[in-house]
Amino acid sequence: MNEFVDCSRLSLNQYTTFNLNVKEAIDACLRADLHYICLWRDKIASYGLDNCAKIVKESGIKVSSICRGGMFPALSKEERQKRIDDNKRAIDECVALGTDTLVLVCGGLHNKNIEEARDYVEEGISAILPYVDGAGVKLGIEPLHPQFAADRSVMVSLPHAVSMAKAINQNFPQVKHPVGVVIDVYHVWWDPYVYEGIKAAQGLIYGFHVCDWITPLPDTLKGRGMMGDGHIDIRRLRLAVEAVGYHGPIECEIFNQALWDSDVDEVIDLMKQRFMEVC
Amino acid sequence: MNEFVDCSRLSLNQYTTFNLNVKEAIDACLRADLHYICLWRDKIASYGLDNCAKIVKESGIKVSSICRGGMFPALSKEERQKRIDDNKRAIDECVALGTDTLVLVCGGLHNKNIEEARDYVEEGISAILPYVDGAGVKLGIEPLHPQFAADRSVMVSLPHAVSMAKAINQNFPQVKHPVGVVIDVYHVWWDPYVYEGIKAAQGLIYGFHVCDWITPLPDTLKGRGMMGDGHIDIRRLRLAVEAVGYHGPIECEIFNQALWDSDVDEVIDLMKQRFMEVC
Repeated sequence: MNEFVDCSRLSLNQYTTFNLNVKEAIDACLRADLHYICLWRDKIASYGLDNCAKIVKESGIKVSSICRGGMFPALSKEERQKRIDDNKRAIDECVALGTDTLVLVCGGLHNKNIEEARDYVEEGISAILPYVDGAGVKLGIEPLHPQFAADRSVMVSLPHAVSMAKAINQNFPQVKHPVGVVIDVYHVWWDPYVYEGIKAAQGLIYGFHVCDWITPLPDTLKGRGMMGDGHIDIRRLRLAVEAVGYHGPIECEIFNQALWDSDVDEVIDLMKQRFMEVC
Repeated sequence: MNEFVDCSRLSLNQYTTFNLNVKEAIDACLRADLHYICLWRDKIASYGLDNCAKIVKESGIKVSSICRGGMFPALSKEERQKRIDDNKRAIDECVALGTDTLVLVCGGLHNKNIEEARDYVEEGISAILPYVDGAGVKLGIEPLHPQFAADRSVMVSLPHAVSMAKAINQNFPQVKHPVGVVIDVYHVWWDPYVYEGIKAAQGLIYGFHVCDWITPLPDTLKGRGMMGDGHIDIRRLRLAVEAVGYHGPIECEIFNQALWDSDVDEVIDLMKQRFMEVC
């Protein structure tokens, strides 16, 4: 457990530099001497999976995770099966790009029955777990902020996500990589039970994301701030995940229109500086 | 426990008709045959407490609650004492207007230490509890949606609010009215532990508020929707609070610019209709 952190663990989540394609984002990482990047599936698709795999290999950069699988709840069984099949494709992409982590944004409501939607999440993860494990990839449920419960993820509590992961894992005692969680400070910082959730997640933390909660919130989706500009005690959360054994990459994921409109190298420089100062 | 609810328990939260002063809002309630209103302190202040008390008395309307006390966390001890003193004035206003319930919006962060802020909330409530109890008024902690954790309320979880209320009450075994909670569906619907929280709150529920969560969220503060326009299973939540014994007024509180810009009588008619249809 280190009071301070250097940039060797810092990963650029591609959406922090939203306007760049995969090659441009990797090039920006190399210029900034970053060792990791998180790639998004829409960006992978638009650049072409084979092209991405080639660039990743040539660059020597490590892909900390792919974002995102999930989106399980849907009204019809056929549609839910389509979502499961799409998650299997996401796992194939993880293998092709050499990452061991698929981040799950689990999906919003299919109707007003939020508990049924959570059941569909559990069913969906259970359906892909054998497939993912054979591929050597880990699934991390990312609980989102409750403001996204209706439209993006019915999983909105870290302790609840850990409980679900453990309930699923009990049914799959033979897998090498049980289902775990990905913890983003933006989504969990407000929770009076967040530190209990981190302790309960020991051994099952597959990612840690940083940004900040700024007020007034500029936008629901694109309202995240640079670390240090907001209200989150990021360092305390980092030390807590390290105390239970997470020492992997730390992704900086900031959805913010003003940052997206700024010079990429300046954004990444500021990200590195703030990472060392406040994370 | 009734499958359906009629409008005899419906209370107009004054902020649903934001542009009206206290007299205008009460007149609108009388035209619509509503028995209850919730008044806001800023509106009470601008109309004058004595004037409000006179109108309330003459109208025969019942004030279901006053909104809001709270706002306890602050950097300096002097400032925290000022907040406590202001809460005592809020209690005096409750007495003057004949309501037995003060809704507490507990206040946001004073710095990045959210647990310390929660300690200040506990201290503040403990400081006013003897005063409020002597006045025959009940304090209800309203856990807000986590999107307000930084700037409006560090109390953002119903189970946590109930735990804090019970912890405070243990220190005041002699009071007639222990600290309780006010449950607004907008703030709690997403929580996987909401029904556990409602059960734990048995005997301590001092208010129940309805509106809806609509997507896309039009605004963080003024983003609430009319019941039935959104994603919340309001009836299930109402039946849950009734199952543990809450049969008091149900306030409709909708912060929404489009509604505020609409004809008041039409808004109230729609509110009554939706209340019976979906609440």
